[in-house]
Amino acid sequence: MGNSRAQRIADRLVVEQQRLVSAFEKFDETGRFRAAPWARSTLGGGLACVLEGGQVFERAGVNVSLINGTGLPETAATGSDIAGKPFTATGISLVLHPANPFAPSFHANFRYFEIDSTTWWFGAVCDLTPSYGFDEDAVHFHRTLQNWCARHGPHWYPTGKIACDEYFRIPHRSEMRGIGGIFLDRLTGEFEPLLALLTDGISTILPAYLPILRRRCPMPYGDRERNWQLLRRGRYVEFNLVHDRGTRFGLQTQGNTEAILMSLPPIATWQFDTTPAPNTPEADTARFLQPTDWVSEPDAPIS
Amino acid sequence: MGNSRAQRIADRLVVEQQRLVSAFEKFDETGRFRAAPWARSTLGGGLACVLEGGQVFERAGVNVSLINGTGLPETAATGSDIAGKPFTATGISLVLHPANPFAPSFHANFRYFEIDSTTWWFGAVCDLTPSYGFDEDAVHFHRTLQNWCARHGPHWYPTGKIACDEYFRIPHRSEMRGIGGIFLDRLTGEFEPLLALLTDGISTILPAYLPILRRRCPMPYGDRERNWQLLRRGRYVEFNLVHDRGTRFGLQTQGNTEAILMSLPPIATWQFDTTPAPNTPEADTARFLQPTDWVSEPDAPIS
Repeated sequence: MGNSRAQRIADRLVVEQQRLVSAFEKFDETGRFRAAPWARSTLGGGLACVLEGGQVFERAGVNVSLINGTGLPETAATGSDIAGKPFTATGISLVLHPANPFAPSFHANFRYFEIDSTTWWFGAVCDLTPSYGFDEDAVHFHRTLQNWCARHGPHWYPTGKIACDEYFRIPHRSEMRGIGGIFLDRLTGEFEPLLALLTDGISTILPAYLPILRRRCPMPYGDRERNWQLLRRGRYVEFNLVHDRGTRFGLQTQGNTEAILMSLPPIATWQFDTTPAPNTPEADTARFLQPTDWVSEPDAPIS
Repeated sequence: MGNSRAQRIADRLVVEQQRLVSAFEKFDETGRFRAAPWARSTLGGGLACVLEGGQVFERAGVNVSLINGTGLPETAATGSDIAGKPFTATGISLVLHPANPFAPSFHANFRYFEIDSTTWWFGAVCDLTPSYGFDEDAVHFHRTLQNWCARHGPHWYPTGKIACDEYFRIPHRSEMRGIGGIFLDRLTGEFEPLLALLTDGISTILPAYLPILRRRCPMPYGDRERNWQLLRRGRYVEFNLVHDRGTRFGLQTQGNTEAILMSLPPIATWQFDTTPAPNTPEADTARFLQPTDWVSEPDAPIS
């Protein structure tokens, strides 16, 4: 690829991808990932690993890509003078949509962009989207991310948490996509410490998410819970297609459409103007979709 | 509303709305529209009529709105110097998603925008989205639109047909949303003849669409056809949320989110990297999703 830093990171991401894929397969028990390598002669390529119709995961995708773009799209260049420049980008993206409506969807993206040897940056995003909210899950998720961040500096969690609440807002719904997490972008400075923050973040995926799945996947559910999950997934689709910079960036760079839209849930519904009845678990979801300081909750269980 | 032309058009659109709603209810037999009026104190309001779970229509929406905006969004002001100016807009939008996978979805939008007494324009859009293509339906649809246009001038159909093929393209899928139709925007000049073109277009909705529904709705179908329809509806969602100017305009003006997203199908699916087997009716759909000269087809049946 003629870019040793990006290639070095991509090589590492592929190793992490295989580790994650194995762990999710083990957790799912019956589902198996299908590996779909893709290449664009001028644009690089990637390896999409997708599991559909598993016991735990209705759809799970873990995608690694390394692309060489001729012109940085504005979605990636916001607020800078580098739009239109050639760039190299590598990253790992994960989206997991469990079948059980009580189990939240998980998303993460860790990436590296480079314009030239002095203009480069990292990004690290990790967030959780429940259909039904559980305080202990939200606290566990945020505390695990906080611990990861704290190993690298005191400012990462507060900064990344606020940016995440802001980024995953669905303005036309006046709510967030989920309970947030970490959104760190345009991290630049000393290369090695930032790479360490990134790789430690990738190692945080399983401890942040699997304990929640272990609690929620055994919970019985019926049509009511499934229907609510499908409506909530409609909101997930709205966010991803209307707002998500990663999705819009991917579609603009004419990347692999299937790998990009792997983030969408396998099935989603829309119903006109429905509001859950007051004092139901469905109505309680709204409380989770506004910015909340989960790590300082006084009654929060220690995870 | 302090704008007599827009108010006059809005009054007419409400009459047309009631006529269309009655006709669709009669056609559906069991389904009933629910009327949801909405108002924004500073922004105007509208009347959304929505039918869900009917015998013919899984979801149908007919929406009229009259809004006074403080600043014209760029989605509506493309290619001009009027972005950010106060405006008045009124329009009628229809989206119908039949339950039967052999019956196509229908969309239309007729609208009037006004900045001031000399800067105003009409728009008229009408298009069809089948999951399974039928040549005779495509010919009937386009010939009916052609006849409407021909009553007002020889240039409207050729112009509007090409613009429609262009507008409803999904670049990341290299296909159109459906078989196209008419897309006329920024029509300005003599007011009354253009208003006549518009109202005649609204009168063309039922003759363009109902004969197709009459042919397709009695056709038996099973899981295979339903699953294909849901995948195709996923593409419909992609177009509307990623590209559609009307949807993005509505969400940007903080209009009625529910009325705007009424255009989405009630349920849609996404599956990773699936292609229909060759020589199946599903594979044949692709042929309908590229620009085609339906009115000149030599073997086309006369409708």
